[in-house]
Amino acid sequence: MSTMQAAVFVEKGKLELREVPRPVPGPGQALMRVTLTTICGTDVHILKGEYPVKPGLIVGHEPVGRVEALGAGVTGFEVGDRVIVGAITPCGQCRACLSGDGAQCSHGGAGFEALGGWRFGNTINGCQAEYVLVPDAQANLAKIPDGLSDEDVVLCPDIMSTGFAAVESGGVRIGDAVVVFAEGPIGLSATAGARMAGATLVIGVDSVPRRLEQAKRMGADVVLNYKEQDVVAEIKRLTGGGADVAIEALGTQSTFESCLRSVRPGGVVSSLGVYSGHLRVPLDAFAAGLGDHTIVTSLCPGGKERMRRLMSVIAAHRAPFGDLITHSFKLAEIEAAYELFANQRDGVMKVAIRP
Amino acid sequence: MSTMQAAVFVEKGKLELREVPRPVPGPGQALMRVTLTTICGTDVHILKGEYPVKPGLIVGHEPVGRVEALGAGVTGFEVGDRVIVGAITPCGQCRACLSGDGAQCSHGGAGFEALGGWRFGNTINGCQAEYVLVPDAQANLAKIPDGLSDEDVVLCPDIMSTGFAAVESGGVRIGDAVVVFAEGPIGLSATAGARMAGATLVIGVDSVPRRLEQAKRMGADVVLNYKEQDVVAEIKRLTGGGADVAIEALGTQSTFESCLRSVRPGGVVSSLGVYSGHLRVPLDAFAAGLGDHTIVTSLCPGGKERMRRLMSVIAAHRAPFGDLITHSFKLAEIEAAYELFANQRDGVMKVAIRP
Amino acid sequence: MSTMQAAVFVEKGKLELREVPRPVPGPGQALMRVTLTTICGTDVHILKGEYPVKPGLIVGHEPVGRVEALGAGVTGFEVGDRVIVGAITPCGQCRACLSGDGAQCSHGGAGFEALGGWRFGNTINGCQAEYVLVPDAQANLAKIPDGLSDEDVVLCPDIMSTGFAAVESGGVRIGDAVVVFAEGPIGLSATAGARMAGATLVIGVDSVPRRLEQAKRMGADVVLNYKEQDVVAEIKRLTGGGADVAIEALGTQSTFESCLRSVRPGGVVSSLGVYSGHLRVPLDAFAAGLGDHTIVTSLCPGGKERMRRLMSVIAAHRAPFGDLITHSFKLAEIEAAYELFANQRDGVMKVAIRP
Amino acid sequence: MSTMQAAVFVEKGKLELREVPRPVPGPGQALMRVTLTTICGTDVHILKGEYPVKPGLIVGHEPVGRVEALGAGVTGFEVGDRVIVGAITPCGQCRACLSGDGAQCSHGGAGFEALGGWRFGNTINGCQAEYVLVPDAQANLAKIPDGLSDEDVVLCPDIMSTGFAAVESGGVRIGDAVVVFAEGPIGLSATAGARMAGATLVIGVDSVPRRLEQAKRMGADVVLNYKEQDVVAEIKRLTGGGADVAIEALGTQSTFESCLRSVRPGGVVSSLGVYSGHLRVPLDAFAAGLGDHTIVTSLCPGGKERMRRLMSVIAAHRAPFGDLITHSFKLAEIEAAYELFANQRDGVMKVAIRP
Repeated sequence: MSTMQAAVFVEKGKLELREVPRPVPGPGQALMRVTLTTICGTDVHILKGEYPVKPGLIVGHEPVGRVEALGAGVTGFEVGDRVIVGAITPCGQCRACLSGDGAQCSHGGAGFEALGGWRFGNTINGCQAEYVLVPDAQANLAKIPDGLSDEDVVLCPDIMSTGFAAVESGGVRIGDAVVVFAEGPIGLSATAGARMAGATLVIGVDSVPRRLEQAKRMGADVVLNYKEQDVVAEIKRLTGGGADVAIEALGTQSTFESCLRSVRPGGVVSSLGVYSGHLRVPLDAFAAGLGDHTIVTSLCPGGKERMRRLMSVIAAHRAPFGDLITHSFKLAEIEAAYELFANQRDGVMKVAIRP
Repeated sequence: MSTMQAAVFVEKGKLELREVPRPVPGPGQALMRVTLTTICGTDVHILKGEYPVKPGLIVGHEPVGRVEALGAGVTGFEVGDRVIVGAITPCGQCRACLSGDGAQCSHGGAGFEALGGWRFGNTINGCQAEYVLVPDAQANLAKIPDGLSDEDVVLCPDIMSTGFAAVESGGVRIGDAVVVFAEGPIGLSATAGARMAGATLVIGVDSVPRRLEQAKRMGADVVLNYKEQDVVAEIKRLTGGGADVAIEALGTQSTFESCLRSVRPGGVVSSLGVYSGHLRVPLDAFAAGLGDHTIVTSLCPGGKERMRRLMSVIAAHRAPFGDLITHSFKLAEIEAAYELFANQRDGVMKVAIRP
Repeated sequence: MSTMQAAVFVEKGKLELREVPRPVPGPGQALMRVTLTTICGTDVHILKGEYPVKPGLIVGHEPVGRVEALGAGVTGFEVGDRVIVGAITPCGQCRACLSGDGAQCSHGGAGFEALGGWRFGNTINGCQAEYVLVPDAQANLAKIPDGLSDEDVVLCPDIMSTGFAAVESGGVRIGDAVVVFAEGPIGLSATAGARMAGATLVIGVDSVPRRLEQAKRMGADVVLNYKEQDVVAEIKRLTGGGADVAIEALGTQSTFESCLRSVRPGGVVSSLGVYSGHLRVPLDAFAAGLGDHTIVTSLCPGGKERMRRLMSVIAAHRAPFGDLITHSFKLAEIEAAYELFANQRDGVMKVAIRP
Repeated sequence: MSTMQAAVFVEKGKLELREVPRPVPGPGQALMRVTLTTICGTDVHILKGEYPVKPGLIVGHEPVGRVEALGAGVTGFEVGDRVIVGAITPCGQCRACLSGDGAQCSHGGAGFEALGGWRFGNTINGCQAEYVLVPDAQANLAKIPDGLSDEDVVLCPDIMSTGFAAVESGGVRIGDAVVVFAEGPIGLSATAGARMAGATLVIGVDSVPRRLEQAKRMGADVVLNYKEQDVVAEIKRLTGGGADVAIEALGTQSTFESCLRSVRPGGVVSSLGVYSGHLRVPLDAFAAGLGDHTIVTSLCPGGKERMRRLMSVIAAHRAPFGDLITHSFKLAEIEAAYELFANQRDGVMKVAIRP
C-alpha cells in the first residue's frame, strides 16, 4: 500500500507530520496530488482545540494540485489536469445544494446540514498532505486556466470565496459605501470584492498599519485605524449618515456591534466571523427592530463553478491577491509554518505550503 | 377658526378628547375627514409613556376617510374622494424614498432618517380625530376602490402593510414552510400574507385558542400552542429540519430566539417586533455565524401604491381580514376603547373608531 | 434478459408499443417501475415529426412509480420507495446546474447545453413504459409524501413545474395583476401559480368555455374569451393600464404579441411556449425599446427539491390539479390515448397512462 | 420680463438659437442656470424629425449648473448651489415612481406612462439654454460634490445613467463575461459599468478603432472589430460557450441579434437601443423559447439619488469618463456643434456646450 506525508491533528495543541496510507478514489471521487496549500485561521482553532475534530484527522482545506486518479463515473477530467477544489465541497444533489445553499450540504440528502458542505479537514481528511481525496469530484474539481500559477489560485478555495460571499450576500452594488471591519486575509478579500462589485467608497478598518496599507492596495478608498479615532463617527461623516453595507470579518462582539452602528437605516451587516459567546444586538443601533436592517451570515461557497469564477478574477488581474502570500514552507516544515502563522509573527498574511 | 374633536396625548397614562383647531392644508398637503380609524398597540405604548411623544400630540396613524380639502399642487384628487393613507407617509422625494426605503424617509432630504416615514401620531398630529392633515399628499392619498367599505380597508394602513412586509422581506415563495410567532393582528396578517405568497406549510404559534382559530381562518395550515408543546421541536418535525422563514410578530427575546431555533440552515428570521432591552443571538441556534442565516427587520411600508396593492387584496377576498374588527366605538368613546384594547378584554382584536 | 413494454417512436406519425429490454441501472442511476405517466403536447410534436428524436426512442417524460433497483452510489432510497422524477433531470454537478440553471444542464460539464436538462424521451429513453432508467438519481428521485396518490402527483414533473416557472421567472408578487394567455394544462397551472404567488387579479384568456371555467377553478378572478371581445383592451381597463406580468402558454406570434400589448410599461412577458417561425416584437407595444419591458423564457425546472416543493402544493390542497386528469388508459392502450389527446377530443385535458 | 438664449426646435432639420422668456419657478420647481450641457444622439433624432416634438420646444436633457431660484416648497437647497439634474425627472410620487420605475413616471398619477419620466427636451423645455426649469425639484436637484468640475459630471444625467442601467438590469455580477455591442458614449459607459459591477471578461465590439481603444481604457478586457472577424464565434470561444450578459447599445436588428447569439443558454440580453422597424427574434438563437433567455430593456433612470451615486463613481475615479468629452462649444455656436456631432466628424464623442 502506498503511503504519503500528511499533517495530522493528534490532540489539543499537537499537530504532527505523519506517514499515512495514500487513499484510493471510490466512485464519484478523485485523488488529487497536492502541489500547494496553505494554513487557515480555522486550522489554528483546530490545533488549539477550540474547534473540535477527531484525533487522527488530516487538517487543511485549501488544495491546489493535479488530478492523480479518477474514481468511477467522474468524466471530463484527465490524470494530470491542474485543478483546485473549494474548501467547501457541495455534492450538488442534496436538498441544500439544489436550493442553492451548498455550504449547508447534506450529502445527497433530503435536508440541510449546518456547515455540512465543509468536509476537508473537518469531517474528512484534508489537504495538508501529499494527496487528498476529493468527494463529489464531478461538482468540485475546477481546472486551473492556462497562465495561472499555483500561487495565483491558492486563495480561491477559501479566502476569496469567503470574502466575496460577504459582498454578494450584502447585495453590494454600484455606488454603495461599504466598510470592512478587520483587514486580515478574509477582510482584504472582502475589500477587493466590494470594490469589484461597484462600491464607490470602500472603507477598511483595522489597527495594524501594514494591513491598512494592504487594504488600500486591494481597493479601499479610505482606511481607518480604530486605535487612533472613533471609526463609527468617521464612517458616518464620510458616508453622510452610514454605510450601505458593513462587513464583519473577525468574529467578535466589538466588530459586529461596530458594523451595526456604522450602517444607515435600511443598511446591511454582512457577517463572516465565527463567533464565540452569544452575540448581542444593541437596540439603540438597531432602531429597536424598526430600522429595516438586515444581518446576514455567509459560509464560504464552493463547487467548481464558484472556483471558475474566482480564478477568472485572478486571470483578469482585478486585485493584487498574490501579495497576501507572505511566506513559503515545505510540507516537512509545516509545524514551523503553524508556529509562525498562529502567532502572527513576521508580518505573516498567508503561508504557502508545498508538499 | 374651525375646530374639531381629537384624541390628544396629555401625559403618561392620560389621553383626552379635546376640541382643537381644524388644520388647513398647505402646499402639497391634503385635509382628510376621518370616517373610520382604529387603535394600534403602538398607541397604547404612547399612552403608557413607553414610547415618548410630545404632550399635546393627536394620536393615531390608521386613517380612512374622505378628501376635505386639497393644498396647492395636489392633483388627480377631488374633494369628497374616499381615501386611505398609510401609517407611514413617505415623501417620495428624499434619498431614502428614492432608494426604495420610504419607511426611513428624510422628508425631501439627502439622507435616511431612522423611522422617519412614521409621522402620524408620532412627529405630527395623527388621525384619532375628526380631521387629519396628510403630508406629501400626492404620494400618500390612496383612493378606495368602489365596492369596499371603510371597515374593509381600515387594516391596510398599518396591520396588513406591516404583516405583509415580513413576508416580502423574508422572501417567502411557492413551496416554503413559514412559521409565525404570535398571532395578534400583525401576526394574523403575516399569516395571511405567507399563505398568499405561496407558502405550502404555514404554521401559526400562540397560546390563546381564539387567536389560533383565527390564524387557521387567515391561512395557517397548522397551529401550535406553545403552552402545550415544544413548538420548536414540532416545527422541526413538521418541516423536516426547520422552516424556510420564521416571522417574529411580538418583540420579545423569547419569540425572537424561537424564530432563530425554528429555521433551517440558510433560513430567514423576518422580524416585525419592537424590542425593548438588548436582543441576544444564541450562537448554538446561529451556527456560530456560519449557518447562512439572515435576520431582517421591517417597518410598515407606506405610500399610495402600497395602499392600492393592499386594498386589491381585500377586493379579491383573499383572506377574512374583516373578522379582525371585533368592536366598534364612536370617537367620543375613545377613552373606553383604549381601556378595552389596552387590557385586551372581551376577546378584542381591533376596534373601529368612528369620528 | 428481462423485457418490458414501452411506447417507441418508430417514424413520423408512428408510435408503437413494443417489447424491449428492461434496463439495468449503472452507477448513479436508478431503475424506476412506472405506475403512472401521461402524454404531453411535446410528445405529440415528436409523434408528428415536428420535434425530431431518434427512431427507436421510448417516449414520455412524466414518471410516477417506485424504485425498482438502485445503481452504485445512490443513497437514502430503498427499493419500493414511491417516487416521482421531473421531466428535466439536472445532474447537479455541471456548470449550468451549479449556476442554478439545471434546465440547461451539461451533464457534469464545464458549460451550458441548451435544453440539456431535458433527457427523458428526448435524448434518452423515456417513461411511457413499464420501467425507466433515471439518470443522476441522487439529484432526481423525489419521494412521494404519505397520503398522496399517483394521480395527485403526476402533473408535478412537467405541467406544474413549467406553469409555476412562468410565475417565478415573471417575479409575480402580492398585489400583482397577471394575465395568462391560453388555458391548456400549462396555462391552468400558471393560473394556479399566479394566484398562489399573491396576484390579486388573475385573468385567464382562452376561447374554449370549458377551459375558461377550469381557469376559474384554478384561481382566475376573471376569464376572457378572445373570440368574444378585444381582450387587450379589456385587460388594460381591468388593470388600469396594463398587467404587471403576462404569461404566454401556447407558443404563437399572436399570443406572444397579445402578452406584450397587455403589460404596463415596466411589465414582464413571461413566456413558456415553444415557438416555430421567427418571433416578432412589435415596436409600438415595446415603446421602441424604452419601456423598461422584460421578456423572459423558462424551461421546466427539475430535480428532487423542485419536485418536493410542487408535491407540497398538492399536499396543501392549494388548487384542484386533480381535475386536469380527464381520461385514463392502460399502457397497452397508449396508441388510442395519443389519438384522443392529439386531437383534443372529448374535452381531454390530461390522460393517465397506467403501465 | 427677462429673456434667455435657447436652442429651439423649429421644424424638421432646423434648430435655432433664439431669445425666449426666462421661466419662473412655480411651487415644487426650481430654476437652474445652465453652465454646461451636451448634445445627445436623441437630440439629433429630434432635429432630423425622426422623433417628433412640438415646434418651439427647447431641446436638451443633460444639465449641469447652479440653482438660480427655488419655487415654493423646495427645501434643503440654496440659490447658488451647484447641481445636476438627470435626463429623466421622476416625480417620486406617482404609481410608477413608487413602484421603483421612475422612467415610466405618470407625474403624480395612479398609473404608468410609457417614457413619461423623460420630460426635458421632449414634453417640456430642455436645457440647451441659459436657464432650465426643473420639475419636481425636490426629487431631482442633485448637489455636485466638492472637488468635481462641471465637465466631470456632465455625463451623469444620461450617458452614465443609461449605460449603467444596462449593467444593472442585466444583473451583472462578479465573475461574469459581458459583451457590449457598439462602443459609442452609451456603450462605453456600459463597458465601464460592467467592469465596475465585477465582470471579469468585458468584451467591447465596434468597428471604429478609436472607439475600441477607448473601450479598453473604460474597462474592456478584450475588444473585437466586427468588420475584421466573426465576433459571435469569437465571443463563444472566449467565454466557453456564450456571455452571461450581452448589452445592446445601438438600436439595430443586427446588434440585437448578435447579442442574442452571443449569450449562453440562460443568458441575458440587456437592451438600451431605440429601435425603428419591428424587432425580430431569431428562433435558432432563442432555443425556440426554451433557453431560459431574458431580454430586458432600460430607459435611463433619473432622480437625485441616482445622480448622487453616479457622481460618486466619478469622485472615486473608477473610469476615465472625462475622455469622452472631445469638443467644446459656446451655446452661441450650438448649430455648429450639432453639425459636427450629427455627422460624427473629427472623432467626436461628446461635445461640451457652455451657455
